[in-house]
Amino acid sequence: MAHVEIDGRRVLADLTALRRIGEYKTGVHRPALTAEHLQSIEWLVARLPEAKLTASIDGIGNVLGRSNCAGAKVLAGSHLESQRHAGWLDGPLGIVYALEAARVINTSAAFAGKAVEVASWCDEEGHFTSLMGSRSYVGQLDEDEIDRLADIADGRRLRDCLAAAGVAGRPRAQVEEGRHIGFIEAHIEQGDVLESSDLKIGIVTSIVAVWQYRIVIEGMQNHAGTTRMAVRKDAGLAAARLAVAIDETFPGIAGARSVWTTGRIALDPGAPSIIPGQAEMLFQFRDSDVVVLERMERHLEGLIGEANAKGPCRLKLEKLRKATPAEMSGDFQSALQIAAERHAPGRSLRMPSGAIHDAARLSTRMPAGMMFVPSIGGISHHWSENTSDEDIVLGARVFASWAAELLSRA
Amino acid sequence: MAHVEIDGRRVLADLTALRRIGEYKTGVHRPALTAEHLQSIEWLVARLPEAKLTASIDGIGNVLGRSNCAGAKVLAGSHLESQRHAGWLDGPLGIVYALEAARVINTSAAFAGKAVEVASWCDEEGHFTSLMGSRSYVGQLDEDEIDRLADIADGRRLRDCLAAAGVAGRPRAQVEEGRHIGFIEAHIEQGDVLESSDLKIGIVTSIVAVWQYRIVIEGMQNHAGTTRMAVRKDAGLAAARLAVAIDETFPGIAGARSVWTTGRIALDPGAPSIIPGQAEMLFQFRDSDVVVLERMERHLEGLIGEANAKGPCRLKLEKLRKATPAEMSGDFQSALQIAAERHAPGRSLRMPSGAIHDAARLSTRMPAGMMFVPSIGGISHHWSENTSDEDIVLGARVFASWAAELLSRA
Repeated sequence: MAHVEIDGRRVLADLTALRRIGEYKTGVHRPALTAEHLQSIEWLVARLPEAKLTASIDGIGNVLGRSNCAGAKVLAGSHLESQRHAGWLDGPLGIVYALEAARVINTSAAFAGKAVEVASWCDEEGHFTSLMGSRSYVGQLDEDEIDRLADIADGRRLRDCLAAAGVAGRPRAQVEEGRHIGFIEAHIEQGDVLESSDLKIGIVTSIVAVWQYRIVIEGMQNHAGTTRMAVRKDAGLAAARLAVAIDETFPGIAGARSVWTTGRIALDPGAPSIIPGQAEMLFQFRDSDVVVLERMERHLEGLIGEANAKGPCRLKLEKLRKATPAEMSGDFQSALQIAAERHAPGRSLRMPSGAIHDAARLSTRMPAGMMFVPSIGGISHHWSENTSDEDIVLGARVFASWAAELLSRA
Repeated sequence: MAHVEIDGRRVLADLTALRRIGEYKTGVHRPALTAEHLQSIEWLVARLPEAKLTASIDGIGNVLGRSNCAGAKVLAGSHLESQRHAGWLDGPLGIVYALEAARVINTSAAFAGKAVEVASWCDEEGHFTSLMGSRSYVGQLDEDEIDRLADIADGRRLRDCLAAAGVAGRPRAQVEEGRHIGFIEAHIEQGDVLESSDLKIGIVTSIVAVWQYRIVIEGMQNHAGTTRMAVRKDAGLAAARLAVAIDETFPGIAGARSVWTTGRIALDPGAPSIIPGQAEMLFQFRDSDVVVLERMERHLEGLIGEANAKGPCRLKLEKLRKATPAEMSGDFQSALQIAAERHAPGRSLRMPSGAIHDAARLSTRMPAGMMFVPSIGGISHHWSENTSDEDIVLGARVFASWAAELLSRA
């Protein structure tokens, strides 16, 4: 493998520059296609020539840095927008690693004719819809859906935002068959597996699937003072009972790495003196094994059946999303293992990703791989999310070596 | 007792006229000091001369119909505003009964020199604050509180609404010592006690106290895919567990007629893929016995202590409201019993009120009594709330006889 030497200070300086765009406490607030997100895109566009890449922004807000070299190319990237009032590294870390790898490899004589190309996928976080930009790139997003989409938090229409960004009507970039040997992405782990074992690099084996449900519970809205306990149909209580039943019984049927979450419980009308007549729950679980996913779904259906049999409320299960786990390329995993062994010997771990990433979508059209660095305290989707400078720089070094290893093999 | 004959058709026509103001499905949407509420106030002001009463609207939006006679006077009334998208009888029934009793008694030679005076208390429902108008009348609402109050649903400032209604700066009517022999109020039961026993008139013995709590739960917001189950601090799950623990253990310590309600559970941020970092619960219980109320509070404190001891979240209990149960006058109850026996022999019941009413506040300054009519299905605080026409007319007849009985004794 040809040697590549990244500039750790430049990596940290780039991440710090991005942190200042939409800064919120020690994190950022940079939802997709807001002024702050567009500013971060402009920042990246201005950097790409340093890697001998020609930047363009496509019709969905993806940034692509293209090389004019004729040889093997690896595509690398992540996303620039953030969750609302969230962390500074979720997305930008993978962008800056890709940019740094491209800068050192695309300007290196040892890699003449080969290149790292950089992609920033728009709205991985799902302000409009999860993995929007990468879905567009792999051909899984149609114009009708774009017509319908609006920001789930503030209602901004996607079409209006694309027009305001000046990209409405532009073509949307698509996978070019044969152009890339594959896609690689780096990301903070967002969990505490690496940190709790004092490891530095996660080699992602697969990206779990999320199966997402909405449970609507119909009770009977009534006066909280005059309605006897015996005749109540309290939809809020039914929701609480289901959440507790899930908590008590899922450990017995889930896989060792399964996770499950009730992210929302909302009672209607939600007033102090009114018995809730309706409740809504958002519940999801994740695993990398379809057999386990199906077992969890059957168990959930069983719990809801039991609750309906017992009464007095009526529970209805809606299946919102059932994805397939995404396998990462075995060759890409072994290439990453080699790079990790060089810079952090004995301190890497093969692990599934519990979070969804753009690499899951890219993997449907080309070989893909993912690399994790440790998250302090496992915290993510919160402004206090962080990774030590030392781990950030080490990760950048491993990532560039990984890209180099892949290009050396091509 | 002198005979009084009410006009049942007029009572139904008046209630129907009020139902058309802010009509919503078969109910009404007439929050306090909205255009619809003001229109209903104007409607009442226009009717009061039919009862030989002079109407005025005071500085808090209370309507008072005053008689110029010199003899004994009973004050009767309820409220005109509704809960949001709620029932047509909750409040207006008591207003129209009072109006009808005043029309027939104040124009009857048999009651010359005596009168029923009519009051409409502003915002019993608590859009700004519960029992606002009756608290003002009994001297329990000060100007500082008025400065601070805003509609809890839409943020309208009370001062602005009073100005828009044209009553800002007007004096607020106050109890006049010795003017009234007492206050009487009719209301729909809002529960199913009368209906389930085929009874027609409820004779209220006391109005329960509501003890209202807010429970704030601190967990740790985190990513729903990457955070292992073992290290989570899920504030939503802690809220669900507390709600279920309350449901399972309160029956063992509560009184026979106690009720308890978790009206709101709100998770923050409430997103599908984020473990809730914070949760809020609004919980209340009601009873007419202070000993029982205190036992329930100690039990609630115990449950929260156990949850904190067990972890992993931190629960904090805030005591928002601890009222004293209001006893209704024994003499007023016996007068109502006589009136009920005349028109619905054997079909009345002495019972506490599980709902709070303006009579609770009036009872702190003068003898007070309350009468219930049946609610179909016990439904209330919902647009489908209803009472049969037959029961409405019977109730009006009993109410007028009750007022007549009280005035005959005076």
